[in-house]
Amino acid sequence: MVRREATAPLLANEDPRDEFDDEEIELLRKEEAKHIRRERARMVLCLALAIVLTSSAVTITFYFAKISLGRSRNVIMMVSDGFGPASQTYGRSFYHYKNNITEGGFTSLDEMLIGTSRTRSSDSLVTDSASGATAFSCALKTYNAAIAVDPAGNPCGTILEAAKDLGMLTGLVVTSRITHATPAAFSAHVIHRDMESEIAAQQIGDYPLLRQIDLMMGGGRCFFLPNTTEGSCRTDGRDLIKEAQEVYGWEHVMQNKDDFMSLKAKDGMFPLPAMGLFHLDHMNYMIDRDENKEPSLSEMTEAALATLKGQAKTSQGFFLMIEGSRIDMGGHNNDPVAHVHEILEYHKAVKAVQKFVYDNPDTLVISTSDHETGGFTLGYQDDPDTYPDYLWRPEVIDRATASTEALTRQLYVYNTQPGNTGRTQKDREQFVKTQILEKGLGITDPTAEEIAYLTNKEPDYLKVVPFLGHAISRRANLGWTTLGHTGVDVNLYATGEGYSKLKGNHENTEIGETMADYLKVDLAYITRRLQKSTQKWFQPKEPQFFSQRTRHQKSGH
Amino acid sequence: MVRREATAPLLANEDPRDEFDDEEIELLRKEEAKHIRRERARMVLCLALAIVLTSSAVTITFYFAKISLGRSRNVIMMVSDGFGPASQTYGRSFYHYKNNITEGGFTSLDEMLIGTSRTRSSDSLVTDSASGATAFSCALKTYNAAIAVDPAGNPCGTILEAAKDLGMLTGLVVTSRITHATPAAFSAHVIHRDMESEIAAQQIGDYPLLRQIDLMMGGGRCFFLPNTTEGSCRTDGRDLIKEAQEVYGWEHVMQNKDDFMSLKAKDGMFPLPAMGLFHLDHMNYMIDRDENKEPSLSEMTEAALATLKGQAKTSQGFFLMIEGSRIDMGGHNNDPVAHVHEILEYHKAVKAVQKFVYDNPDTLVISTSDHETGGFTLGYQDDPDTYPDYLWRPEVIDRATASTEALTRQLYVYNTQPGNTGRTQKDREQFVKTQILEKGLGITDPTAEEIAYLTNKEPDYLKVVPFLGHAISRRANLGWTTLGHTGVDVNLYATGEGYSKLKGNHENTEIGETMADYLKVDLAYITRRLQKSTQKWFQPKEPQFFSQRTRHQKSGH
Repeated sequence: MVRREATAPLLANEDPRDEFDDEEIELLRKEEAKHIRRERARMVLCLALAIVLTSSAVTITFYFAKISLGRSRNVIMMVSDGFGPASQTYGRSFYHYKNNITEGGFTSLDEMLIGTSRTRSSDSLVTDSASGATAFSCALKTYNAAIAVDPAGNPCGTILEAAKDLGMLTGLVVTSRITHATPAAFSAHVIHRDMESEIAAQQIGDYPLLRQIDLMMGGGRCFFLPNTTEGSCRTDGRDLIKEAQEVYGWEHVMQNKDDFMSLKAKDGMFPLPAMGLFHLDHMNYMIDRDENKEPSLSEMTEAALATLKGQAKTSQGFFLMIEGSRIDMGGHNNDPVAHVHEILEYHKAVKAVQKFVYDNPDTLVISTSDHETGGFTLGYQDDPDTYPDYLWRPEVIDRATASTEALTRQLYVYNTQPGNTGRTQKDREQFVKTQILEKGLGITDPTAEEIAYLTNKEPDYLKVVPFLGHAISRRANLGWTTLGHTGVDVNLYATGEGYSKLKGNHENTEIGETMADYLKVDLAYITRRLQKSTQKWFQPKEPQFFSQRTRHQKSGH
Repeated sequence: MVRREATAPLLANEDPRDEFDDEEIELLRKEEAKHIRRERARMVLCLALAIVLTSSAVTITFYFAKISLGRSRNVIMMVSDGFGPASQTYGRSFYHYKNNITEGGFTSLDEMLIGTSRTRSSDSLVTDSASGATAFSCALKTYNAAIAVDPAGNPCGTILEAAKDLGMLTGLVVTSRITHATPAAFSAHVIHRDMESEIAAQQIGDYPLLRQIDLMMGGGRCFFLPNTTEGSCRTDGRDLIKEAQEVYGWEHVMQNKDDFMSLKAKDGMFPLPAMGLFHLDHMNYMIDRDENKEPSLSEMTEAALATLKGQAKTSQGFFLMIEGSRIDMGGHNNDPVAHVHEILEYHKAVKAVQKFVYDNPDTLVISTSDHETGGFTLGYQDDPDTYPDYLWRPEVIDRATASTEALTRQLYVYNTQPGNTGRTQKDREQFVKTQILEKGLGITDPTAEEIAYLTNKEPDYLKVVPFLGHAISRRANLGWTTLGHTGVDVNLYATGEGYSKLKGNHENTEIGETMADYLKVDLAYITRRLQKSTQKWFQPKEPQFFSQRTRHQKSGH
């Protein structure tokens, strides 16, 4: 047996066994078998470890990247129109007052606070609702009064249209006219928000993309009725309800609470497509509402969620825009009573959405405002000659039972009904004192000036509305600086999936971008589709439009 | 050679080499040596892997749990007094206007937005700065005007005192009197904010805990001078500057910008303990400041950070409270000019703090407000009879060169100086038009009413201040509803370490809790120490205190 020098290295291609006899080979084989077993055991262990690590890595990746192929996503965009930071504190503190909470106690919205949104439009530091909603729907800044058109007046694709293009179901739930700025900016394209006749036509499907909405609910029936019908506000004789049904395939048109209840009676869902136009004009304020005639925002929200979830194909999901529209109008009227009850109802709608997201986590929920309204403040200097009180008084607001709009309507009816001619100044004073001020606003200490103003036989009713608002606000130490909007950043709330890049302070357009990113849609593609056919349907902005346009728009809410 | 049965297991104490001849043994030895080398290599690899994994685990654990033994932690609490949500939008938009930015463009604060803070006090929905600051310093809600005492009027331990108890360095940097509500609530205990003589005494160390502050800078020298000295506002003849130096070990007292520059000339750090009292009263507004006489908030901030960082022992760290005090006073005066320049300077101080945190990540930074002031709104209805404009005008604010307080002082001097008797109404008109309105506020279109009011020979100067504020605010379409505070939630900003539980909406007391948790201190322990000795030093609240107290406090800012 030739022995290699102990120091000589083995060459790579030499098998040491060549030099051994059978027994030695057998021994080595056994040793080798042992080593192979050991190696195998090690490999199995390594493999197992690798599998565990890899699958953990994959799980973690999926978990954090939220990757999911072919599953549905829902987007719920909630808009609290005209709801600035003070209004949220106001709503919460009023709720606390009613429920004897002094500290802590979160509202549904508080739980979702993630940042703030900057509201300026392309042509002003103070936006209106049209450009504010277009920032959400098209993810671009445009001029005040623009409805889903860019600063040059060309239509821009909206998140609702992009969702529809993906095969998702789409819905709009509002308490204003459905043709009003916010819902319009998701579902129509016009150069000015006042073109509500055109907006209504596009909403039923009369534009190049055809019907894009599966479910819409709100007020504004007057823009769907021919101008030959009483109560219509259309500029033409088109009967859009008939057209909707006969031409654009809308199966169901609800007009009141009974319709609402019976259409969803079977399984809590509406058959689609369906629309609910529950009032000729805006729906009533919560505090004035007859619950037998109109559904509330939270009722509409719950029904819409059940319907869209129940009827969207598993791989589709839905897009739903929900607006607490009249929070804004309470602000415009400087009416703290209407304002707070709209806010509380919005909180209820948020709660319904939160419940939905708990059961359906594959949902992005964003709630924010387009702007603040009224320059509303929780504190007011009642007496300019003394140092101001540091307080405001929820108990004053809690005594009121009606909006200032409803009370002004009562005063108008009282002043104009036939029996009025025989009434004395004393009669009018009695009515104003008891019906308007005491019963309506809980005011038992009217001043001589207030009585004199309100007993004027032919008052300017448009001015009576804020006059009443200021009467109760002053007593509650609440302040207002305008009947219009202000420029403060508004709160940004979100929950569910895919919202994290909205934490902190953002331009309002980033809200639109976040929704588009979450749905992985390209709004520019929809814009190209819309602009390709503008010649046939779209009235572009005239060059003189800007110069003619005044900021004193009568409907510029 | 006896062969073992291939199937027979090797016994543990058998050496297979016993059965082999020398050559076989040599061969086996070589094989074994190879295996041993392999095993060693494997062991080394395993060990290396174990070390890598263990150290990673330790690193990760430390990273997430923020565990650190014996390392320093710093807390920087920044208070933007009277700075509501609208004021942040205002400051940013004004900055954008000055720098031609239309969209995007973050201020230092915007980058840190994490939520909002609820400001109500224990006895009102609208807090004052005393109870607002006590919520931060003692982490409890108390009554308006309380300086680090609880609702019953008993002293409560502050975060500054707790930090000192840990052996940390402590600092206060403000632009108001150092004895004013916010700094006082971190460093003194009195039942009413107006007791500034007592506050000053406690701040130098005249109370049971002795000197707790290592560095304090701001205004308010008048409360440290004996009432026999001109300019003093003390109620007694104590010379607190002398006492501070002789009794309580304060090494250095700076009184002006020269002192400030020379004391830190050597290495950018002040020797400690040191105080800077740069004005008898509040320091000047930024827009009125003579930069050769008073340091700015950002200059004081930078010097304080360098000093406290440089002189804290490695294992100690520091607590520093920085207040943009006079943002609030611009609000109280309804002066949008003073207000915005204080805000911009606060942004600069925030930037200095951010730079510090970048280099010193073991620092918790919180910036928030105690409350909103003025009911300030970015939008104002100029004409009550027409629909309001949707805008506000930064260019109007940009034309102003002085605060309304400074202009009112100019008017006072003009009216009261000896030559005044010979002046005609026309002289006074000329002065008001050119000096006050045009040069001071950039107003070139004064109304007859404005001229008449301002040329009154003996005007109520306290009213001239807001009169001028309203004159420019109206032209800029900015609104105010009060000379006092309002109740809106304020923005909450944070960066650095340990702030994450402050994300979202919180009671202001949770800000104090977060600082205490981060430093792992027990405020209740300090409270017990303070209360143990109240008999000797503390004037408890009289039973009739609440009934006597009126909300119309003349100094209730």
